[in-house]
Amino acid sequence: LSSAARHDGLLILALNLAGTFAFGLSGGLAAVRARLDIFGVVALSFVVALTGGIIRDVLIGVPPETFRDWRYLAAAGGAGVVCFFGRTAMDRVHGGIQVFDALGLALFCVTGASKAFASDLGPVQGVVLGAITGIGGGMLRDVLLREIPTVLRHDLYAIPAVLGAAVVAIAHSAGSDSVYFSLMGATVCFVSRMVGIRYGIHAPIAPSERDRPPD
Amino acid sequence: LSSAARHDGLLILALNLAGTFAFGLSGGLAAVRARLDIFGVVALSFVVALTGGIIRDVLIGVPPETFRDWRYLAAAGGAGVVCFFGRTAMDRVHGGIQVFDALGLALFCVTGASKAFASDLGPVQGVVLGAITGIGGGMLRDVLLREIPTVLRHDLYAIPAVLGAAVVAIAHSAGSDSVYFSLMGATVCFVSRMVGIRYGIHAPIAPSERDRPPD
Amino acid sequence: LSSAARHDGLLILALNLAGTFAFGLSGGLAAVRARLDIFGVVALSFVVALTGGIIRDVLIGVPPETFRDWRYLAAAGGAGVVCFFGRTAMDRVHGGIQVFDALGLALFCVTGASKAFASDLGPVQGVVLGAITGIGGGMLRDVLLREIPTVLRHDLYAIPAVLGAAVVAIAHSAGSDSVYFSLMGATVCFVSRMVGIRYGIHAPIAPSERDRPPD
Repeated sequence: LSSAARHDGLLILALNLAGTFAFGLSGGLAAVRARLDIFGVVALSFVVALTGGIIRDVLIGVPPETFRDWRYLAAAGGAGVVCFFGRTAMDRVHGGIQVFDALGLALFCVTGASKAFASDLGPVQGVVLGAITGIGGGMLRDVLLREIPTVLRHDLYAIPAVLGAAVVAIAHSAGSDSVYFSLMGATVCFVSRMVGIRYGIHAPIAPSERDRPPD
Repeated sequence: LSSAARHDGLLILALNLAGTFAFGLSGGLAAVRARLDIFGVVALSFVVALTGGIIRDVLIGVPPETFRDWRYLAAAGGAGVVCFFGRTAMDRVHGGIQVFDALGLALFCVTGASKAFASDLGPVQGVVLGAITGIGGGMLRDVLLREIPTVLRHDLYAIPAVLGAAVVAIAHSAGSDSVYFSLMGATVCFVSRMVGIRYGIHAPIAPSERDRPPD
Repeated sequence: LSSAARHDGLLILALNLAGTFAFGLSGGLAAVRARLDIFGVVALSFVVALTGGIIRDVLIGVPPETFRDWRYLAAAGGAGVVCFFGRTAMDRVHGGIQVFDALGLALFCVTGASKAFASDLGPVQGVVLGAITGIGGGMLRDVLLREIPTVLRHDLYAIPAVLGAAVVAIAHSAGSDSVYFSLMGATVCFVSRMVGIRYGIHAPIAPSERDRPPD
């Protein structure tokens, strides 16, 4: 490998590990708040950080990749330990965690889509796998804590992931798998997620439900 | 292929897509009622329509098949869009949807069992996989909406799927994988499901619980 | 095979089937108490007895092994039938079931770790897979019954599984996959689990939550 390519690879690895760590913080913090024990806190960090990529690989039909790489396990488990001992400090840097989480979402949705195309799946599958890689962990976190997944109800969270994956899918359909479109997809996801947080934007619910109380 | 065989194949594909669409409606409608946003509605349609087949293929140990076929993804996603915009119309054709759903159940339980045998699994595995293919999606729908899966508690839903798969399993054990036994299995499932709906039949709970209030 | 090796193999098979049966009782009993119907009771027995091993094999990337062996399906399903008809008798032998369940946990955590090493995974993965094999089924049971998994909150249940798997992982890292370390790991798990039950020991929750009421 050339020095430049190795540098790029290290950058992508560092970003992926940062995203994994941020997702792990999201799981661990939710677990601490739900008063899970130390095993439960570390387990939830693993769940949020790794589930999306695991479901992606199962749907593609290959052995889960991140699970085989101890650096991802260390990033996820380390996030759990940080949450267990440091909730008070973390409550103070909530905004920072949201930025890292948005970064993780942005990276995971484009890597999910790219992996779909590397496995010869079509554009629809690429978008679905990109979204699942980004949101799967958070969904399982909510199910384990007995909540309807926020990502299905609240916030602009899944739609940025879909948009980011769609950029990669459109470029792929047009014949290019260039890393520049991955960067563009990640940027679209990250910016739309941060704009959604900043202005409190929500995805719409069905027209029939807007004027009536919940069933 | 002969013209007759191609005709049969098209019929089975059409029935499978109709079943997928009906399962998608079931997921989308539940999501609209739970006031999920548009992403959540389409996601639940995917979940109900595709999860059973995905679990089946994971248990067999092959890459999930329907996920690779865009026509199934289109049928599932299309059902979600219909639910998002058309709940009012759908409430009017509730009986029609139940018929399609029973058709989906009937088809999925026999195709699940057949795929088990095509993968050299035994009759018990065939029945289990037939049932999972039919009910897996509805179970995950209920888990995501924070309910105990209806299929484990109410209605005659899983047992028709078990019966349909059992017909295929018995025929297989007796040496025949003829499509006629698949048709017979699907019919047994469909009819017992519709009779269960019509007469409000429920599967029994344990003798010890019948005379006492819930814990 | 020599007569001694065959005898060992039979012993391990018998212990595994006893553990599967005990896990099946745990699922079936919870289902009877939640007033699930007969299908739901048998389904929960399957879920608790088989899910851990299935998730392990999916994470390793091989077709789920126990699912292919009818004896495990029979042990799991048989436990469900026993629960459906015999709750009253079982309430009387609760302590006995806990012992079998601890035995199942002890066996599953060491076989999970061993299988990870046989698949060339590292020590961290071995510990994680050992724990998942032991606790995965109970977690899904609780999710299906709409509860936050006890294993994440209560009791000393996951930590004995982690300890048992860690013994196997340390021996493996030191160059030995001898069955004696598996026996030692299983003993560590079993004893710490029974001590936890006897003295009501719980794993700690986060320091920040100890003095405040739940959110």
